[in-house]
Amino acid sequence: MTTSGSVADGDDGHDGPSGGTRRTHRVTISDLARRLHISKASVSYALNGRAGVSEETRQRVLDLAEELGFHPNSAAVALSASRTRTIGIVIARDPTLISTEAFYMRTLVGIEQYLNEVDSSLLLRLTGEHGEDLDVLRRWSRQGRVDGFILFDELEDDLRIPLLTELGVPCVVVSSNEPDDTVGRLISSSTETVELLLDHLAELGHTDIAHISGPFTFIHERLRVQTLLEQAARRGMVVRHLEGTYRYDDGADLTRRLLTGPNPPTAIVLGNDLMAVAALRVAMDLGTAVPDEVSVVAWDDSPLCELARPGITAVDQKTMERGRAAADLLLRMVTGNTVLHEEAPPGELRRRESSGPARS
Amino acid sequence: MTTSGSVADGDDGHDGPSGGTRRTHRVTISDLARRLHISKASVSYALNGRAGVSEETRQRVLDLAEELGFHPNSAAVALSASRTRTIGIVIARDPTLISTEAFYMRTLVGIEQYLNEVDSSLLLRLTGEHGEDLDVLRRWSRQGRVDGFILFDELEDDLRIPLLTELGVPCVVVSSNEPDDTVGRLISSSTETVELLLDHLAELGHTDIAHISGPFTFIHERLRVQTLLEQAARRGMVVRHLEGTYRYDDGADLTRRLLTGPNPPTAIVLGNDLMAVAALRVAMDLGTAVPDEVSVVAWDDSPLCELARPGITAVDQKTMERGRAAADLLLRMVTGNTVLHEEAPPGELRRRESSGPARS
Repeated sequence: MTTSGSVADGDDGHDGPSGGTRRTHRVTISDLARRLHISKASVSYALNGRAGVSEETRQRVLDLAEELGFHPNSAAVALSASRTRTIGIVIARDPTLISTEAFYMRTLVGIEQYLNEVDSSLLLRLTGEHGEDLDVLRRWSRQGRVDGFILFDELEDDLRIPLLTELGVPCVVVSSNEPDDTVGRLISSSTETVELLLDHLAELGHTDIAHISGPFTFIHERLRVQTLLEQAARRGMVVRHLEGTYRYDDGADLTRRLLTGPNPPTAIVLGNDLMAVAALRVAMDLGTAVPDEVSVVAWDDSPLCELARPGITAVDQKTMERGRAAADLLLRMVTGNTVLHEEAPPGELRRRESSGPARS
Repeated sequence: MTTSGSVADGDDGHDGPSGGTRRTHRVTISDLARRLHISKASVSYALNGRAGVSEETRQRVLDLAEELGFHPNSAAVALSASRTRTIGIVIARDPTLISTEAFYMRTLVGIEQYLNEVDSSLLLRLTGEHGEDLDVLRRWSRQGRVDGFILFDELEDDLRIPLLTELGVPCVVVSSNEPDDTVGRLISSSTETVELLLDHLAELGHTDIAHISGPFTFIHERLRVQTLLEQAARRGMVVRHLEGTYRYDDGADLTRRLLTGPNPPTAIVLGNDLMAVAALRVAMDLGTAVPDEVSVVAWDDSPLCELARPGITAVDQKTMERGRAAADLLLRMVTGNTVLHEEAPPGELRRRESSGPARS
């Protein structure tokens, strides 16, 4: 992450010595700002003909720049001219779902922490519906409002990617998909999480597992299920898969179906925290002891998993760190004018009371 | 909320009849957009000389406007010229706390829902520390990046308010404080929540209550405690007050102190959901039955309260609706160039299993 630490003061990389006695030195943006009692950003805006300062201020800056013989470092100016110090995030998901799932808030907080350290901002839009998000991406790009985007929830044939590629706006997809050269990717491999979960369940003697996933509209859900099935087969485990929607009610209904069926599994892997809490509740309501009769584990950890009783075993996906990493990757792409791929920080299993030895 | 519905298409309030056979009518921004196959926003930017469209597009718009004899409604143009269609939120709180509390995410989602309906955006910054937030407010204001701000967590002698007043930038404070003429306020009265909670506890026969509040640095916490003490006294109830920090550990420690002390209260009111879950856990760990020996109720509802076992009785503060209302109020202030105050949507008690008759 240190590589882009310089972004913090990137609009003026050729500053003279600060503090101590002032020597004669090349005139900088800082000097202009100090003399005019305005911010370095305002000076930069004025010099680059961008919005954000009044015409009067712009004129004062240009006059003083001429008077003092200011010669901008062209690379620095180009950089500052191209950079809005803002990144965009547009999320097309049911807003009420976003508000109950910890994933987004933790990711946003990680991104915001990083952006704040490099004095950059986040332009955020929750559109609710797919299609609308494309309009917003297009508009913000054309208006030059952001330096780039972070995208979540990659879809099959995701239209956002060709759109942003065509518009030439950098973006980082937080994804479990394979890298290609068109967009940056922060890749969180499903394999790793699957291994953490299956190793844990295998150790406890489970061979008959069910997985209630999120919806298959999301590429990462397909990849998860595919990987889970492959890895389980390799371990001699049987996996039943049911497609869910991430919603509590859905997790409850599908768990009820599994537990009241002819051969209930000894362990259930739920695609998110809400569905895992639902599974726990349903098991209790049915008088099925957790973990003695069925183990419940969750793909994503969250306070819900931690505070549930019994506590739910889950993979801590390091969501905040992942947010930070995505923001860092995007800013490096923006400043380096390049496309980058990186592995997301590895997850970690949080063992809690909801998983135990398989019933015999 | 209907009053500002016109904001949704505010940059073109004088549109002709859409659909049906087209009659001769005054040329509008919509007409120009349709003919040029670009968005209304782009036309508006071009006409108002703002960034966001290429020079080529700008020229095409101006040419067509002249050709068709477009006469802009000057008020509409002034409005669209002055508006960035963006509002700002800067939150100075520990980011990890923000990520575990549902309050912020739900409020942000409510704000975003509203903004999306009127095609506006949110510029968001989590600064972590007080002081830094002032810099960001100042910078965004001076750069004209936002039309106004929504402020949370009002402090005693809150420096943000004189700052924004001086800068002349509209802001809405989501607050339980009294209205004054300098800033807009969305006021959620403590009285109402206190009445909901105390009526409920009085009905169950509780007379010996404890309240673990959030930190007194926030004005709303002082007002809550003050109101709670007054209203309880009026009902002949005794209230002990302990100041907490909203954190889980803190809620646990203070609850332990109360329950292991000489005269434990029969009910505990917790200032947020995390502390309420902590109280529940501690009571269980100590073998104090909830609600038979102690009732646990929370100031704010959330999925944590709903999904806890027993479910925690809490006041649904209608956080999403409150977010919507705050955004609506701010946009009405921006377009009307005025200062407004409004009551927040009323809360509602969610009775669950954590509260019951006082032990005798």
